[in-house]
Amino acid sequence: MNPAHLARLSINQMTVKQLPLPELVRACAESGVPGVGLWREPVRAYGVEAAARLVREAGLGVTTLCRGGFFTASEPHARVRALDDNRAAVDEAAALGTDTLVLVCGGLPEGSRDLTGARKRVADALAELGPHARARGVRLAIEPLHPMYASDRCVVCTLDQALELAERFPAEEVGVVVDTYHLWWDDRAPAAVARAGAGGRIHAFQLADWITPLPAGVLTGRGQLGDGVIDLAAWYERVASAGYTGPVEVELFNEELWRRDGREVLRQTVERFASVVPRSSSVR
Amino acid sequence: MNPAHLARLSINQMTVKQLPLPELVRACAESGVPGVGLWREPVRAYGVEAAARLVREAGLGVTTLCRGGFFTASEPHARVRALDDNRAAVDEAAALGTDTLVLVCGGLPEGSRDLTGARKRVADALAELGPHARARGVRLAIEPLHPMYASDRCVVCTLDQALELAERFPAEEVGVVVDTYHLWWDDRAPAAVARAGAGGRIHAFQLADWITPLPAGVLTGRGQLGDGVIDLAAWYERVASAGYTGPVEVELFNEELWRRDGREVLRQTVERFASVVPRSSSVR
Repeated sequence: MNPAHLARLSINQMTVKQLPLPELVRACAESGVPGVGLWREPVRAYGVEAAARLVREAGLGVTTLCRGGFFTASEPHARVRALDDNRAAVDEAAALGTDTLVLVCGGLPEGSRDLTGARKRVADALAELGPHARARGVRLAIEPLHPMYASDRCVVCTLDQALELAERFPAEEVGVVVDTYHLWWDDRAPAAVARAGAGGRIHAFQLADWITPLPAGVLTGRGQLGDGVIDLAAWYERVASAGYTGPVEVELFNEELWRRDGREVLRQTVERFASVVPRSSSVR
Repeated sequence: MNPAHLARLSINQMTVKQLPLPELVRACAESGVPGVGLWREPVRAYGVEAAARLVREAGLGVTTLCRGGFFTASEPHARVRALDDNRAAVDEAAALGTDTLVLVCGGLPEGSRDLTGARKRVADALAELGPHARARGVRLAIEPLHPMYASDRCVVCTLDQALELAERFPAEEVGVVVDTYHLWWDDRAPAAVARAGAGGRIHAFQLADWITPLPAGVLTGRGQLGDGVIDLAAWYERVASAGYTGPVEVELFNEELWRRDGREVLRQTVERFASVVPRSSSVR
């Protein structure tokens, strides 16, 4: 049913957030896309069980749920709330049938300049959440974000840092997300990818391209595959060479794409993905 | 004449670019600021020899000249022009009496996705320029820029990368710039600062704070000292502990500061700098 070269493709819901969930699911099924990456807010608005059924009945798989995390609060009540919310996210992931919860770890608390302390609190939260996640069959996947988000979104800035956190726990509990948008600039990332793969810790692989100029706030400037400077084919091969055989999600946040017809953007994304996948991979 | 706690302070011209050079020089001299960091374009507009005389007669020193670099073109004629321009920058630095030319190494050439190749061309250019700079008594100072500039401005993204480039050459020829704005997020930067200091390769030290949200284009959002999340006092101590005793330049690119009265911004910057310098340092 799915063309061979699309067998690993997953469309992250944010890429075409203009499509309501049923339209996203229908468009993916019609396009031969076997997977979707979902976000908690739209899933909860639709209903978690209903969303799970919708996706399942269309013959699709949920590759990841985005997102847990935001572990860096130092105020005790805020920490308790964050952990409770993350346990709920784990349960939602299990209900959706995905084994992977993506974690955006959180930035510096208001008024703080203590990066080291914030990173320590991420480790503490992983220790508390890990057993709950494992019991539900859900793996926690730390996503290192580009350093331009270090203050307000994620104090984990490199794949090496994410691995140093993950490796304190069993690989079935905690791993990493390899996202080209966040890692492409880092000359140490290729070695870290190999290490992550050898340890069975690549829990998700996401593609987006890097384009400039960045928009104000730098959140919604991710480029369509092929529009930017990242050698995506090389990244695809690199992650495959590290032993990763799982889904490849396309996750774009882009105002211009969001203004266009969602089904057209999805078709374009499928085409662009096909041009990224090395020919040798399509017959694997 | 200079208060002890300002003995190492230098104001980079861009911080108060609304001030014409004579006003900048007068305001620094009146405020007890002993150094200025200059930029090529306004210096050339004023006249290199005239600028050198102006600064000298005010009793100030030129701490750095910004900037050479942009070494990453692959097209042969563009490379020749870039090297010629850098030789001119070295000569201008020597004429101004500064021993440090700051290098912004350049981004990816149009249409290229080859970061490794671009970094290799930076090394090649340093090899060609080094002897010319040394003969003029000018040190080349590689400035690693924040990874958000990797594609369009500087393929050298970390202090480790900058050091790996610099260490191929004698420290009197090639060193690095430690700029808090570019490096604050990097957990490997402290070790790299120590290594750079031990090797005598910290050729400049610049301060700016990190504030969000970032503006479109991400060039003009550097925060006034104390307005952001960087632990500047810790960075000051870290660089001092690495053995660096040279000037400390404040280099802010900030639209809001540029709209204000330049002399007032300069006064504020001096006050903020004083609050960053640890008390123990003021009596050194």
